[in-house]
Amino acid sequence: MTYRIDCLQYANWSEKIFRQMRQGGVDAVHVTIAYHENFRETVLNIERWNRWFEQFPTLIFQGRTGADVRLARETGRTAIFFGFQNPSPIEDDIGLVEIAHTLGARFMQLSYNNQSLLATGCYEAEDPGLTRMGREVITEMNRVGLVVDMSHSADRSTLEAIAHSTRPIAITHANPHVWTPALRNKSDDIIKALAESGGMLGFSLYPHHLKDKGDCTLEGFCEMVARTAERFGTQCLGLGSDLCQDHPDSVVEWMRTGRWTKHMDFGEGSAAAPGFPEMPAWFRDNRDFDTIESGLRAVGFDAEETAGVMGENWLRFFDNSFSAANNVVAKKAAE
Amino acid sequence: MTYRIDCLQYANWSEKIFRQMRQGGVDAVHVTIAYHENFRETVLNIERWNRWFEQFPTLIFQGRTGADVRLARETGRTAIFFGFQNPSPIEDDIGLVEIAHTLGARFMQLSYNNQSLLATGCYEAEDPGLTRMGREVITEMNRVGLVVDMSHSADRSTLEAIAHSTRPIAITHANPHVWTPALRNKSDDIIKALAESGGMLGFSLYPHHLKDKGDCTLEGFCEMVARTAERFGTQCLGLGSDLCQDHPDSVVEWMRTGRWTKHMDFGEGSAAAPGFPEMPAWFRDNRDFDTIESGLRAVGFDAEETAGVMGENWLRFFDNSFSAANNVVAKKAAE
Repeated sequence: MTYRIDCLQYANWSEKIFRQMRQGGVDAVHVTIAYHENFRETVLNIERWNRWFEQFPTLIFQGRTGADVRLARETGRTAIFFGFQNPSPIEDDIGLVEIAHTLGARFMQLSYNNQSLLATGCYEAEDPGLTRMGREVITEMNRVGLVVDMSHSADRSTLEAIAHSTRPIAITHANPHVWTPALRNKSDDIIKALAESGGMLGFSLYPHHLKDKGDCTLEGFCEMVARTAERFGTQCLGLGSDLCQDHPDSVVEWMRTGRWTKHMDFGEGSAAAPGFPEMPAWFRDNRDFDTIESGLRAVGFDAEETAGVMGENWLRFFDNSFSAANNVVAKKAAE
Repeated sequence: MTYRIDCLQYANWSEKIFRQMRQGGVDAVHVTIAYHENFRETVLNIERWNRWFEQFPTLIFQGRTGADVRLARETGRTAIFFGFQNPSPIEDDIGLVEIAHTLGARFMQLSYNNQSLLATGCYEAEDPGLTRMGREVITEMNRVGLVVDMSHSADRSTLEAIAHSTRPIAITHANPHVWTPALRNKSDDIIKALAESGGMLGFSLYPHHLKDKGDCTLEGFCEMVARTAERFGTQCLGLGSDLCQDHPDSVVEWMRTGRWTKHMDFGEGSAAAPGFPEMPAWFRDNRDFDTIESGLRAVGFDAEETAGVMGENWLRFFDNSFSAANNVVAKKAAE
């Protein structure tokens, strides 16, 4: 079996879910550990993960490098990689970029829907592009090996991040806008710039990013992956399911509103459907990666391409992205 | 030349001092990064060190394991190991023990002169011994590989820490009380219990811990080391100079008073001599370790014993102390 990496999940973590990761043969998961948390609150979340690592050492451990994905496979466990969906954990302090990396953070979104200190989110009316601090922080992220993730960012900010970053960036969880025009899905221009710079796109299975939402078919999803591969190549493609398992709806409300508003904000939902959307019947949890793998083969991907999308493309990206810059060849030089 | 390790310094760090470390052939220094700082403030101090590591990569780098001391020697640099003189960085949160270790902390004193949440300091009138949290935190420190340091703790707390800890502990910077009866110096009972449990004593060169303070002679100091070796063996002995170089006297005032009092506390000083004491003429900075090495040979230590005291005993201790407990043989089992 080939490597399986899911490059975004945010679940109500439990032994049940860690066992499902093993049942699904998932070697590595990039887990969100902060949406709106400040530094100290993020550290509390890491402390919770440390307890899980201590409690369930035969199921999970903290991943820090691509080699840890191989170790996970060899030892029958799942490597857990930390990421932030917002730069709130680094507050207004560029020194926290390296601290976050030392604590294991490997992905950080520069903005989550709203304007941040660094960049613009995809829900803002105006996108003035990267801020002064945003450019400084990208340079520092490049130096230490913390990957820029623009999944929830607006278009101009995203294109500027791709251009400013000297190392490939990621959009860990989104789909092509041309397939279904969700605000969170990405334009051809962005995917092209991402792919040409060695970046990665993780396909999302979150219903709001799918054509026909929870009614999206496996074939429809896999055809979309195939069309994207035809246009931009297969090497830049992976999975970032955005699985939000077992959470009460209060959590999606918090994801959307954090502390930035006193009012309800429905985000991708609506007053009629304010909660978490129902997942497609063919992707309920970590045990369903076999289904996706079969679906990719069914739409014509060969074994090697399928292995790439299921995890090996992410693994190559992990290998090149998580170490300090002086240990790797920079993006521009590699081109 | 043999390994040279100084297991405590707290200087007003600068390129000058880092160059003096190199001139003195010092392979590793345990540096204090917190006296009274809370967690966030300690992280700010780490951020300052990260800037120095980035600025002076040919002189210093962050040490995390005994292997890093060997790497320092091979690459002509000094490995810097972080430590706390107080448990203030972990606040009231046992989860911060592992976080601190991940950030590189390798020594933590359970108390600094005063009562802490964990243990009693040597300036308190009463020493009720380890607290409930103190016992829990020692167990957690043992698990992750953060060394218990009792340099500034009171006697009962120290003996209880030695007994409760399943791994050898350290007194990084103090001298035998029998040599000179400073409050900070340690009784024979403590040194005996420390030595018998595989722990380490680092001899201090801070004048308040020396017989005749700054007038202490090199011969007197080295004779004291020799007498200690005769009584407790050489293997448990090293250096922890307590060098506090280039600081203004406002810093020693802060070391003594932190935020715990609104009044002046002279600590080991006095109203007549409130500032930093003058160092002995034969130990001014990191360039003077040759002098100590010669002094040890002059009082009769052979080459191997001298190498042990100058650094190899600490190196062996580092090798056994800084990794997670499941990677090493525990103290009790090793006996």
